[in-house]
Amino acid sequence: MILANMIHQDSFTHSTPGRGTSDIGADVGRVVAAAGIERGTATVFVHHTSASLILCENADPAVRSDLEGWLAHAVPDGDPRFRHDDEGPDDMPAHVRAVLTATSLTIPVRAGQLDLGTWQGIYLYEHRSAPHRRRISVTVLGGATV
Amino acid sequence: MILANMIHQDSFTHSTPGRGTSDIGADVGRVVAAAGIERGTATVFVHHTSASLILCENADPAVRSDLEGWLAHAVPDGDPRFRHDDEGPDDMPAHVRAVLTATSLTIPVRAGQLDLGTWQGIYLYEHRSAPHRRRISVTVLGGATV
Amino acid sequence: MILANMIHQDSFTHSTPGRGTSDIGADVGRVVAAAGIERGTATVFVHHTSASLILCENADPAVRSDLEGWLAHAVPDGDPRFRHDDEGPDDMPAHVRAVLTATSLTIPVRAGQLDLGTWQGIYLYEHRSAPHRRRISVTVLGGATV
Repeated sequence: MILANMIHQDSFTHSTPGRGTSDIGADVGRVVAAAGIERGTATVFVHHTSASLILCENADPAVRSDLEGWLAHAVPDGDPRFRHDDEGPDDMPAHVRAVLTATSLTIPVRAGQLDLGTWQGIYLYEHRSAPHRRRISVTVLGGATV
Repeated sequence: MILANMIHQDSFTHSTPGRGTSDIGADVGRVVAAAGIERGTATVFVHHTSASLILCENADPAVRSDLEGWLAHAVPDGDPRFRHDDEGPDDMPAHVRAVLTATSLTIPVRAGQLDLGTWQGIYLYEHRSAPHRRRISVTVLGGATV
Repeated sequence: MILANMIHQDSFTHSTPGRGTSDIGADVGRVVAAAGIERGTATVFVHHTSASLILCENADPAVRSDLEGWLAHAVPDGDPRFRHDDEGPDDMPAHVRAVLTATSLTIPVRAGQLDLGTWQGIYLYEHRSAPHRRRISVTVLGGATV
């Protein structure tokens, strides 16, 4: 079997409604499908420091709201220890949350598709209270039989 | 020097004895050795949301038990704030722990081997109390001199 | 458009002054520029378990000092729950901090450069109190038009 090596890169923006998670699995999947790459990896990257990416259980929305509750408790808005509050009480917590989660996720591609587990969803996590437009890139590296 | 670009992808399952870490370095190393790729990266991915991956000190087992102690304290089982407890008091903490650690690790490959630091071990972290079978994929991207 | 697939891998060491963040964006950027790869990914990897990598806001240094404050509070030095203290009260906290942040970052490369957001800086995070020499590898995978 000969594999022709290929690279496919695309980006999209997602408008968030403020703090919380948005399922971006379909958007990422579209870039992977367009790549025509059978086997390799897809790297999802968010170009911001107050939003991040998570792979999380996709069946019960309570998982993501409980995660939000945990983060809100662990990194409280308006914590008086934070000096950086230029953009409000949710500014610095957003940066800490982004560091604790992920800016990039690298997911295997198999049979031309994201090879996720049954319960794995890809979420953009907005950590700021206000809505934001967030840019996300997907780079697919790998090959296809020729 | 000419590098022929190559892709190698394989997966394996690991049966965990319940909460705690399992050294999967030899399993990952075997996939990398089979790849025949001299230089590039190996991406390790766990296809679950209540188990995760860490690179951690590999000499003193107390490092991993102390890490477990820290996580057990920071994300307590049975926390009444959690609504998602379908599978028990360790269910939601497992999802939070997975988000705080990593679902994928990308490690450089050099001279045909994982280029890890002296003290870096690759561990599968089971966050559920009960034993589970976990699927792990390794994708090696890179090249070899021809 | 034909892309010739390419791999470029290099490493450098950074001497840290002890606990805190060091901007390594220029060092990583130099490896990416030397790669001559137009499109793909750059994976930055730190070969240690008591130092780590973060992508963080690069305009206001208070963001990184607030992050340090949060970590110092969440994972206190000398915590009596930690048994692993061979190298001092900052030893085990360094390992926990490394697990909570990142050992590898994969960043898209576009137009031959790291495609970072406006406010994204790449930092080496030294978690030990004493100065250390840390090794960092960069692997660039992708292609260039020929």
